[in-house]
Amino acid sequence: MSLVRVHNFSISLDGFGAGEGQQLDAPFGHAGMRLMEWALGTRTFREMGLSGEGPGSSGVDEAFARAWGPGIGVEIMGRNKFGPQRGPWEDEEWKGWWGDTPVFRTPVVVLTHHPRPIVEMDGGTTFHFVDADPVEALAQARALAGGLDVRIGGGVDTVRQFLEADLIDHLHIVLVPIVLGRGERLWDGLEALEERFDIEATPSPSGVVHLTLARRTASRAP
Amino acid sequence: MSLVRVHNFSISLDGFGAGEGQQLDAPFGHAGMRLMEWALGTRTFREMGLSGEGPGSSGVDEAFARAWGPGIGVEIMGRNKFGPQRGPWEDEEWKGWWGDTPVFRTPVVVLTHHPRPIVEMDGGTTFHFVDADPVEALAQARALAGGLDVRIGGGVDTVRQFLEADLIDHLHIVLVPIVLGRGERLWDGLEALEERFDIEATPSPSGVVHLTLARRTASRAP
Repeated sequence: MSLVRVHNFSISLDGFGAGEGQQLDAPFGHAGMRLMEWALGTRTFREMGLSGEGPGSSGVDEAFARAWGPGIGVEIMGRNKFGPQRGPWEDEEWKGWWGDTPVFRTPVVVLTHHPRPIVEMDGGTTFHFVDADPVEALAQARALAGGLDVRIGGGVDTVRQFLEADLIDHLHIVLVPIVLGRGERLWDGLEALEERFDIEATPSPSGVVHLTLARRTASRAP
Repeated sequence: MSLVRVHNFSISLDGFGAGEGQQLDAPFGHAGMRLMEWALGTRTFREMGLSGEGPGSSGVDEAFARAWGPGIGVEIMGRNKFGPQRGPWEDEEWKGWWGDTPVFRTPVVVLTHHPRPIVEMDGGTTFHFVDADPVEALAQARALAGGLDVRIGGGVDTVRQFLEADLIDHLHIVLVPIVLGRGERLWDGLEALEERFDIEATPSPSGVVHLTLARRTASRAP
């Protein structure tokens, strides 16, 4: 059975998944890279070429980071995660923030009100631009997934919309011990979310807490 | 050295320390007792007479719950924690929510814009009604503490005001895996709070995560 999963999604103590003032050179706004620091030292992120040199860590942060890839056949992302352009595409030559060989290596559904032709990248990533609500977008993504799982890649608003629509089966949240004060909140509008999930917490020596929310099966629901 | 401490202060995943609609028979509003469930089974809460029968638990929840009392010489609480009356005191015969023998067994400073005479209860608790800002209230409380520590007892607004004024040395927060959606937020207005504290997370088999924030000493500050 194909599941819908979220991985390595960091929030602050006060629930912000991104700070205020997001822009091209500051994708997390005033939060800078503080929400992702726990991940940058892991072997998984080193291998993606997204952080420094060396082999990377192999502890609990790595164990969670690593789960991002296996079994995934497609990612769905908000337009902001593809690139900073807004409105109609003015430069179709620019192919997003992820370089010539994006880390995804699967089809990627980019949610946008402005469709454009499929973009094929090196390494197996193809960007598909789709104007659809979460249910429709998921159906289109599944058709590209070859029976494998679907990852919801963010940002904050995209994850929250899929949670509101009750489309997510597995949610990995990383609670980072900082207070951002302002930005985009993950939990807004999700009152009583816990009734749909079994929740487990695992602290890391790095200071973060990994929270996993796994959808309750019918037989285990209250 | 006398410290200012907060203990057993529960918040939801989305940061609410109390729900919406607080009233006499619902001190946590629509949250009900869900924020305190982790504590009700502990030996400490059983011994206070605040929960059910039996000896109570002795695991990590109890270890944290127990730290509430030792070394404390006084508590400061908001008026809501004393009782539900608002405005001028209309019934001075009513002596608060805490029964004839309140659990505090120390002087308690009740923050209110409407002072009234000291109320002496059985078991060592005395209620002192004080109209003061956090700095002044803390000075008055220390004078009653006999050199021991000061506990800030809540509610949400009182704890947040003392954090804003940078008066708290030790903060024990219990993160309860529920999404309340509405109520009183603890973290609002506290951007960058982590710069003043060392933060540690300890999960409990009960499902909550104990967070301790300990003030950084000058030599350890960045």
